[in-house]
Amino acid sequence: MDYTILLNLAILIFTAKAFALLARRIGAPQVVGEILAGLLVGPAVINLVKPDDVLEIFAEIGVIMLMFSAGLGTDLKQLKKSGLKSFVIAAVGVAVPLVGGFVLYGIFYGFAMPPSQSFYTALFMGTILTATSVSITVAALSEMGKLSSEVGTTIVGAAVIDDVIGIVVLTCVVGSAGGGGNVGMVLVKIAAFFVVALGVGMVVHKAMEWLDAKHPHSQRIPIYSLAFCFALAYAAQKFFGIADITGAYAAGIVLCTIKDTEYVEKKIDISSYMLFGPVFFACIGLKTDLSGLNLSILGFSVCFILVALVTKVIGCGFAAKVCGYKWMDSLRIGTGMMTRGEVALIVAQMGLSAGVLDSVYFPAVILLIIVSSVVTPIFLKLLFAKGGDS
Amino acid sequence: MDYTILLNLAILIFTAKAFALLARRIGAPQVVGEILAGLLVGPAVINLVKPDDVLEIFAEIGVIMLMFSAGLGTDLKQLKKSGLKSFVIAAVGVAVPLVGGFVLYGIFYGFAMPPSQSFYTALFMGTILTATSVSITVAALSEMGKLSSEVGTTIVGAAVIDDVIGIVVLTCVVGSAGGGGNVGMVLVKIAAFFVVALGVGMVVHKAMEWLDAKHPHSQRIPIYSLAFCFALAYAAQKFFGIADITGAYAAGIVLCTIKDTEYVEKKIDISSYMLFGPVFFACIGLKTDLSGLNLSILGFSVCFILVALVTKVIGCGFAAKVCGYKWMDSLRIGTGMMTRGEVALIVAQMGLSAGVLDSVYFPAVILLIIVSSVVTPIFLKLLFAKGGDS
Repeated sequence: MDYTILLNLAILIFTAKAFALLARRIGAPQVVGEILAGLLVGPAVINLVKPDDVLEIFAEIGVIMLMFSAGLGTDLKQLKKSGLKSFVIAAVGVAVPLVGGFVLYGIFYGFAMPPSQSFYTALFMGTILTATSVSITVAALSEMGKLSSEVGTTIVGAAVIDDVIGIVVLTCVVGSAGGGGNVGMVLVKIAAFFVVALGVGMVVHKAMEWLDAKHPHSQRIPIYSLAFCFALAYAAQKFFGIADITGAYAAGIVLCTIKDTEYVEKKIDISSYMLFGPVFFACIGLKTDLSGLNLSILGFSVCFILVALVTKVIGCGFAAKVCGYKWMDSLRIGTGMMTRGEVALIVAQMGLSAGVLDSVYFPAVILLIIVSSVVTPIFLKLLFAKGGDS
Repeated sequence: MDYTILLNLAILIFTAKAFALLARRIGAPQVVGEILAGLLVGPAVINLVKPDDVLEIFAEIGVIMLMFSAGLGTDLKQLKKSGLKSFVIAAVGVAVPLVGGFVLYGIFYGFAMPPSQSFYTALFMGTILTATSVSITVAALSEMGKLSSEVGTTIVGAAVIDDVIGIVVLTCVVGSAGGGGNVGMVLVKIAAFFVVALGVGMVVHKAMEWLDAKHPHSQRIPIYSLAFCFALAYAAQKFFGIADITGAYAAGIVLCTIKDTEYVEKKIDISSYMLFGPVFFACIGLKTDLSGLNLSILGFSVCFILVALVTKVIGCGFAAKVCGYKWMDSLRIGTGMMTRGEVALIVAQMGLSAGVLDSVYFPAVILLIIVSSVVTPIFLKLLFAKGGDS
């Protein structure tokens, strides 16, 4: 066994917590500190910890636990109320950045028509911008105690739906660019996942309620819950081509109304904040390699990031306003949807494999993840501090 | 990323908990159920989960957390009182099985003198039997609430010292069998580790006490504690050639008298029982491959296991009696020291690399781990139920 993982974990959880407390002291959200801690100890700065497969797995379990906990904390009535609105916000919030990325590439490098290579590159730029990564927002909202508010529920709901829409868009783009992927098949799989999740979820929910009545507050409740979460996350990714964190969120929803929900949530939260959570956020910083940057790419990157943030705020915020939210809440929703995460990188990776994207644009994507992850919680905090009940 | 780990974890924690509860229902310790769950879902029976590097790491963190928790729960006064006794028990408990294994091999395959190959093979058989794996015993004692009793402290102390003596013996044997390793160097390293652990430990202890006074019951206390545990475990293994779990136990001892010790222990225990602990115990069963067994090896294995168990009970029990323990407590101590674990496998592995041991004896070692892990908790439970205060 390679024991380096022990040292890596020790460094990451220690620095992440120390920087998180520092961030809190200056009024910033703790997750920002955790990301910067990763950036500092990682290859980008002092190169003490190198990202590897094992850390990747710990980080993945971290985000799975985070989303599971968000699902567990869901106010189901609230979600039912905001479900349709979330869908509209997600859809518009995918469309506007998609167009924005396409146009930005055209402005920089010229517009083109299919079947030109340039057209598909531009389309991929747009596709990279579609998927919101809700984990940072969830952590920030949770820190402020706003996660189960109407705005919080709408954001998380929209981000999950956005993920699904993003997959459909990606499949269409890859398909049309000449890669594999069948749009109809993808839609069938997505529908199948929700049918299966609903069916299995009802059985698991009943079983857990029965267990809960028989052995309240016993270890088996949170352990079986976590096993269910892992299983559904795995199944989503493996059999339905949906992000594992969507599966974890669905598992949380399934268990959000049992008697011991709060008990389960507490155990998951402890497991998460002791180890997996900090590792996840630190890994975002850790994976950042800024060495490929030059001035031209940097210029594009700055515009890319601006377009990414602005189009989400406008798209989602406008849709929220149309759905009947007040201006302030619309702005909060738009801002909460700004974060991009590993999905953006995965899309970029697929563009590279499909031969339509150059790896020279990777730093732009990584910077987008960093910047959006750092500024979104700060903006959210400011917007919620501004008052106006949500 | 390979998502199989999610499925593996889901299966392991679910079946481990289910079997643990089943074991408890029939009056056996829960860890026995967890090991059998691993045996069942692993390659030995239904082959649903295959052991891999990532599971190995989760298991290792599981045993590290277990030993850290045992260290945290140490009654320091008790340990000081039983320290010398633990040392004597450990030393005799290493010597008797060493001779036992040597003699057993001689009886089966003939005695030989150095520099004959056979002599070293026999010596290795003995060496495999030296190291007690205390994790199972710790879990069983903890389940019975006897971990911080005088007997419990003596056992854990002896097992940790035994580990150190085992390393010295192994180095001598490998060295004399023609492999590398310098006995003097090993002893220096071991002494250096305890000096460093003591020095660093005093600083960390002071720092944590200061932090504890300033921010009692805050998340940073258990997080920094865990980081320290990982770091010391890593350092022990990497720089001093001592088992990582010894480092983790030492880290626990360092922090066993701060104000928030109990708070830290609780958070570690939750992180452990939710995921890492069950994975560790299930992995023992998981790694068992019984396919290489034949009748002749099976015969040797049975005797090998009997010798392993009996020599530890006699060696440690006799030493305990000499040290002034009552008969019942001496028997409990001897029994608690019977368990063998991954160290036995590591020794066997080293014998294979050194060319003095055939892999045909591996199932015997694995069976020893399984059998000792299963019977020790059961015997302990019976012995403690028999009464006689400890």
